[in-house]
Amino acid sequence: MKQRILVLGGDGYLGWPTAMYFSRRGHEVAIADNLSKRGWEAELDVEPLIPIASLDDRIAAWQEVCGPRIGSFVGDLTDLDFVRGTLEDFRPDTIVHYGEQPSAPYSMIDAQHAAFTQVNNVVGTLNLLFAMRDVAPDTHLVKLGTMGEYGTPDIDIEEGYLTVHHNGRSHRFLYPKTPGSMYHLSKVHDSHNIHFACRVWGLRATDLNQGVVYGIETDETALDPRLATSFHYDEVFGTALNRFCVQAVAGEPISVYGRGGQTRGYLNIRDTLACVGLATETAAAPAEMRVFNQFTETFSVLELAQRVRDAAAHLGIETTIAHAPNPRVEAEEHYYNPRHSGLLELGLEPHPLSEELIDTMIERISAFRDRIRPELLVMGVRWAPERPAPERPAAEPVAAAPAGASRQDRA
Amino acid sequence: MKQRILVLGGDGYLGWPTAMYFSRRGHEVAIADNLSKRGWEAELDVEPLIPIASLDDRIAAWQEVCGPRIGSFVGDLTDLDFVRGTLEDFRPDTIVHYGEQPSAPYSMIDAQHAAFTQVNNVVGTLNLLFAMRDVAPDTHLVKLGTMGEYGTPDIDIEEGYLTVHHNGRSHRFLYPKTPGSMYHLSKVHDSHNIHFACRVWGLRATDLNQGVVYGIETDETALDPRLATSFHYDEVFGTALNRFCVQAVAGEPISVYGRGGQTRGYLNIRDTLACVGLATETAAAPAEMRVFNQFTETFSVLELAQRVRDAAAHLGIETTIAHAPNPRVEAEEHYYNPRHSGLLELGLEPHPLSEELIDTMIERISAFRDRIRPELLVMGVRWAPERPAPERPAAEPVAAAPAGASRQDRA
Repeated sequence: MKQRILVLGGDGYLGWPTAMYFSRRGHEVAIADNLSKRGWEAELDVEPLIPIASLDDRIAAWQEVCGPRIGSFVGDLTDLDFVRGTLEDFRPDTIVHYGEQPSAPYSMIDAQHAAFTQVNNVVGTLNLLFAMRDVAPDTHLVKLGTMGEYGTPDIDIEEGYLTVHHNGRSHRFLYPKTPGSMYHLSKVHDSHNIHFACRVWGLRATDLNQGVVYGIETDETALDPRLATSFHYDEVFGTALNRFCVQAVAGEPISVYGRGGQTRGYLNIRDTLACVGLATETAAAPAEMRVFNQFTETFSVLELAQRVRDAAAHLGIETTIAHAPNPRVEAEEHYYNPRHSGLLELGLEPHPLSEELIDTMIERISAFRDRIRPELLVMGVRWAPERPAPERPAAEPVAAAPAGASRQDRA
Repeated sequence: MKQRILVLGGDGYLGWPTAMYFSRRGHEVAIADNLSKRGWEAELDVEPLIPIASLDDRIAAWQEVCGPRIGSFVGDLTDLDFVRGTLEDFRPDTIVHYGEQPSAPYSMIDAQHAAFTQVNNVVGTLNLLFAMRDVAPDTHLVKLGTMGEYGTPDIDIEEGYLTVHHNGRSHRFLYPKTPGSMYHLSKVHDSHNIHFACRVWGLRATDLNQGVVYGIETDETALDPRLATSFHYDEVFGTALNRFCVQAVAGEPISVYGRGGQTRGYLNIRDTLACVGLATETAAAPAEMRVFNQFTETFSVLELAQRVRDAAAHLGIETTIAHAPNPRVEAEEHYYNPRHSGLLELGLEPHPLSEELIDTMIERISAFRDRIRPELLVMGVRWAPERPAPERPAAEPVAAAPAGASRQDRA
């Protein structure tokens, strides 16, 4: 069934391919974006590897290449009037919400960036929930969260909810979260706020706890160079596999944080689009916050690095793996068994990580080798800055850190 | 051992008595407050029942009556420079943090008040955590949360943490929360942020999940009329027992929301001071977020109303109990068994609710009978506003609401 689909953050790495994905399938699509990702890039002096067109030029190119017009609303989700006005104007059946500050390192730069990230993400989503309540109560919200909300608990990670048996009684809770950065915390706050809006106002929402996305191309971005998406390799906005491929092409060592046992869920950008598509086709019920864990495979960081090193070697590119000091405070060896059956049951057909995919990425990156700025691969954002020497004896926090956690001082 | 104690929100209902409590016991005390509670009162045209002095006059009266000088820092916790400067200047051993927007109804007025509450509370606490990390890493944070963070799950509520056994493994989680308003959500967000700061930066914190506080007087407020604390009976800032006593004195029916089976933890304001005192004497360890459930007894709202009605009758005041439409969306019959042993183990000697205490409150309130404005007892803030008629058939959210929940439309 054709829908009116509003993509919040539709100018971003995932938002733009998502908008094209739905538009190509006959849905009426509009984007809302404040273009602030481009501002954060300027602030940090980083840029996507592949030059991307302006939002207007992307939309014009899409219309030229494929026919349909994608609508656009330029404004900020923290502006309630903008949010209400956009919903009243476009009247979406589904809202796909990527419109948040997406980087954990960005949120850990300092207190201001932490507060900005939480305010930006939490208030944007709150405004959306209130506007939905008041002007679009039957609209389905598809919200992008992250697997990083869960942390790495010592038990299986279920999909969103956990039934606890305790002292002879039982209760189904939101799965308790132990997030690892100010950014991940903002997503946990969002999940609690969305859950409230579903429970108390009867809204419908799907919370997608997404793994780490890799990939550079979708069926739609491949249609025309002007349709490319924003591919980052810098420490702040880039993610593991994407960065590793750029390091291989640049002749830099592949940098694994610490021992590299950190295991996470990953998925191909094409599978992100398929998952969001499946969530959109099958709306949550009124008053339901449905949760899916959106990834297809788990890898340790070291495994990923080895996969990239080996694929590069077969292409004649020799690289090494460097164990860099871990800027994050996280367990480097841990149990990790997250469920991810919900989207498979809806029909997801995963694209597992293959050497062919890595080859394709390396080839595509190689075409832009001259644009790689190696200094962006390590930018020095740290989770726990070096302490100034205390005037009175301070307790030593290292001893109390969780087993397996690393905690490095700035060298 | 004498400490330097900074009371954030030290101009408020609990903050001011807390500052005097510690000052009288020989600690060096300073208050930080932005005086915004007085601004919110002006915004809503409400006022405390008993006139209160300005912060400067309170501090001067305290010095005159008792001798020690309480310091004051007037500024906003959402101003990072103010927070850092205050910590650098006062160098507290313990920070008692009441400095947040404290009202659930205020947070539910509309989208702006919801966003304001979450930003104000979350950013204030975030700034505090970053400032502690950078300039006072060994200081102990005693943070006021609320029992309302937990909601009313169908299993026992433990003190802050829950060990879950699942598929043959086990993990100790932060107890999962199901809060009932935008305000309560802000406290859940705070708890997650504080937990992160303890885990990742090694800070020490005690999170006090406080029940509903009642009472009008402490040993220190009774010393001089200028030392009175801010006692509210209005719908937005007043709490159940306090409001009921005012209704009895005003000759108004005691208003119970819905059936009145909503059961919560309660405590006397004198016990709040004792609990905060005990938490301050025994600091959390580095990297520990210690959690106590801070209340002494549980009552249903109907039981409390009956206690007030009966005590009033013995004083010759005849009142009735009115079951008003519930403006909140909450279960009116539910399981409720929260633990609260931690503070008892530290030595808390509770003041249970007695008819004598209710008598004392009614007598004190009677002296200010002429200041009671009955229109403030019901101000019409609703958790779920009446829906405008949808243009397309909307799903009926009532049916999907949790069993036992009420959902009223504005009559």
